[in-house]
Amino acid sequence: MTDMNAPEKPLLHKARVETLVDGVFAIAMTILVLELKVPEGLDRRAPEPLLHALLHHLPVVLAYLFSFFLLAVIWVWHHRLTEKMAAMDRPVLVCVMVLLSMVCAFPFAAALLGRYPANPVSLAVYMPVLAVILLSQTAMFWLARRRGLLQPNVSAELALAAHRRNVRGLAMFLLCAIPAALRLHWSAATVCGALGVLLMILQRGR
Amino acid sequence: MTDMNAPEKPLLHKARVETLVDGVFAIAMTILVLELKVPEGLDRRAPEPLLHALLHHLPVVLAYLFSFFLLAVIWVWHHRLTEKMAAMDRPVLVCVMVLLSMVCAFPFAAALLGRYPANPVSLAVYMPVLAVILLSQTAMFWLARRRGLLQPNVSAELALAAHRRNVRGLAMFLLCAIPAALRLHWSAATVCGALGVLLMILQRGR
Amino acid sequence: MTDMNAPEKPLLHKARVETLVDGVFAIAMTILVLELKVPEGLDRRAPEPLLHALLHHLPVVLAYLFSFFLLAVIWVWHHRLTEKMAAMDRPVLVCVMVLLSMVCAFPFAAALLGRYPANPVSLAVYMPVLAVILLSQTAMFWLARRRGLLQPNVSAELALAAHRRNVRGLAMFLLCAIPAALRLHWSAATVCGALGVLLMILQRGR
Amino acid sequence: MTDMNAPEKPLLHKARVETLVDGVFAIAMTILVLELKVPEGLDRRAPEPLLHALLHHLPVVLAYLFSFFLLAVIWVWHHRLTEKMAAMDRPVLVCVMVLLSMVCAFPFAAALLGRYPANPVSLAVYMPVLAVILLSQTAMFWLARRRGLLQPNVSAELALAAHRRNVRGLAMFLLCAIPAALRLHWSAATVCGALGVLLMILQRGR
Repeated sequence: MTDMNAPEKPLLHKARVETLVDGVFAIAMTILVLELKVPEGLDRRAPEPLLHALLHHLPVVLAYLFSFFLLAVIWVWHHRLTEKMAAMDRPVLVCVMVLLSMVCAFPFAAALLGRYPANPVSLAVYMPVLAVILLSQTAMFWLARRRGLLQPNVSAELALAAHRRNVRGLAMFLLCAIPAALRLHWSAATVCGALGVLLMILQRGR
Repeated sequence: MTDMNAPEKPLLHKARVETLVDGVFAIAMTILVLELKVPEGLDRRAPEPLLHALLHHLPVVLAYLFSFFLLAVIWVWHHRLTEKMAAMDRPVLVCVMVLLSMVCAFPFAAALLGRYPANPVSLAVYMPVLAVILLSQTAMFWLARRRGLLQPNVSAELALAAHRRNVRGLAMFLLCAIPAALRLHWSAATVCGALGVLLMILQRGR
Repeated sequence: MTDMNAPEKPLLHKARVETLVDGVFAIAMTILVLELKVPEGLDRRAPEPLLHALLHHLPVVLAYLFSFFLLAVIWVWHHRLTEKMAAMDRPVLVCVMVLLSMVCAFPFAAALLGRYPANPVSLAVYMPVLAVILLSQTAMFWLARRRGLLQPNVSAELALAAHRRNVRGLAMFLLCAIPAALRLHWSAATVCGALGVLLMILQRGR
Repeated sequence: MTDMNAPEKPLLHKARVETLVDGVFAIAMTILVLELKVPEGLDRRAPEPLLHALLHHLPVVLAYLFSFFLLAVIWVWHHRLTEKMAAMDRPVLVCVMVLLSMVCAFPFAAALLGRYPANPVSLAVYMPVLAVILLSQTAMFWLARRRGLLQPNVSAELALAAHRRNVRGLAMFLLCAIPAALRLHWSAATVCGALGVLLMILQRGR
């Protein structure tokens, strides 16, 4: 990371990494639904108890759909970034692995939020997992841009625009997280707000 | 979606999306079988109790095989449609993600039906999940056709025939669902029948 | 299936099917190990109770390794056959899906055998699952050969040799299954033996 | 394995094997996190009990992250080796399958260590699983090198350097395992130390 102009030899073919990424996302998306448990020990024919038990699960179903489409958006975003990249070296690969480790942990965070929606501790797990996903994605592309790993046909303006979109996404997430952070502690909300505003300003300059 | 003749820039390579689709289908098919639980606490040598416990599971086994081959047919159908498509833009990708979210939810619906086969509420979960799968598939191809995303070598007649097959499949499903809908409420059956007949008529014209 | 010389239009690209096959095998292999449960409620420091609990699981570990390598051999065998094939039509695809449905059911059969190794009912589940896997594989290649779906560079002798190996593998399995079938009933053993000998004779002629 | 200079016909395309390897790693990485269980039966709103329950799980979280990145490093290492290989024959494939069988077993070993971190028996499961992974990887590349299965553009020096790195990695692991082995028995530590030193000396000569 010292000499930015001499990129390290690419560590792995991009295609290999993308197969792993697709696999991990596919499994994480499917594991989300494992939180939906079939109710046990109810009357086999009467519709009311089963309907009541399933309606009781409705927040979990909504949390499932929300988390599924969140992962879908992150997956599309990830591939929109990697298709601009020609190769991956070690630091970029570290970012991808940090991203994947949080994607794998995402079903746990979603299950916690679905089970304890009114508990601030659930948010204190869910939001940081999401923040690290967005942060590692932004860092991955920033590193790829700085280390000359982008496709030759990607212009500098296009790369800068993609980077700014990443930073803006991260800033928007931090600003949207303020209400959730407030439920934890006023200092958490202050940090979210300050970082969000800072990123919003920073993304203009670079 | 306003100007149908100016297709938006393709969002993602088709190949990337298909890897995710294949992964999600493979996992959903395998998770179906997790409902088959090894009976616990039975005599280690006597065949009768174990045989009895397994035969008690026979509806679950049949539901597993039925749901597995249903997913297999949907998977083949999906790839028969996507191989006619050259690219995917945002609205098409949204359809694919809706499809995948329901494919992931399918093992839960199948488990519910296997556990409560005589309960109308199980059908009220299973049938809509299947309906959304068929609907999102039909919508995906309809959008791709309207937005000029098909392969150049796919003739307009071939595309129209594929679209009609999709609509007819959806109509057949709705008509077949009438007996199941009757067990819920007569109004549900009426809606199924009316929509089925409507689609059967509509698919002729377009 | 009536006019063998006019092969139906290939249903799907072979590559698509192989991604699904690889995904299902990878998940089935990994799910095998989910039967190994971490013992609960033991002393956190004393080695003897934990060691004792794990040694108690030793048959399950051995069953895991055996089933894992069995699936690995079947996976290699499957790809050795499909690499000789140029395309897949509907009947061949049905064979592949039957194969996959049994591969998905294999972890359940392996878990049952690991939990009740001395119970003949476990064998009565495990052996037929394995038999259907081998049979669908043999049928897949036989159909591909009869319907002209093999690669042009695969000579008729090579294809016949591969088919004979399939039939011989099935016959060997049936003959090896005689002791297991004897524990069920003498008639099951007779059927296994008769079919095994019949296949051994048949594979010479064709 | 008798005539090293006449390599057996490649058994399978490398690409096929890599899809399976990527699938198994993706699933093993995701299954690691299934050990994180959502606490049950706590107060829905009070943050303290939930926070306390989650902090109680902190060693499991750290074990998850450690094992995830260990698998990630092994996955990268594996692909760095296989990209130097042109084909895979039977003995190489056996090494890959031994590797995969231990990767699948890794989540169980990690869960055992996370649940009983202070118990020497957990280490006696975790360390050998890791040792077999490293050993099968080293053996895979050694066999590929001896049987002439490397890419033509990989020079003999490059291949030798990669092999030495493998052996050194194995030796380092054995030396690092001495403290863990000491907690089991002094003889285990002696074996680890002796093998580690032996490998360190051996890797210089070849």
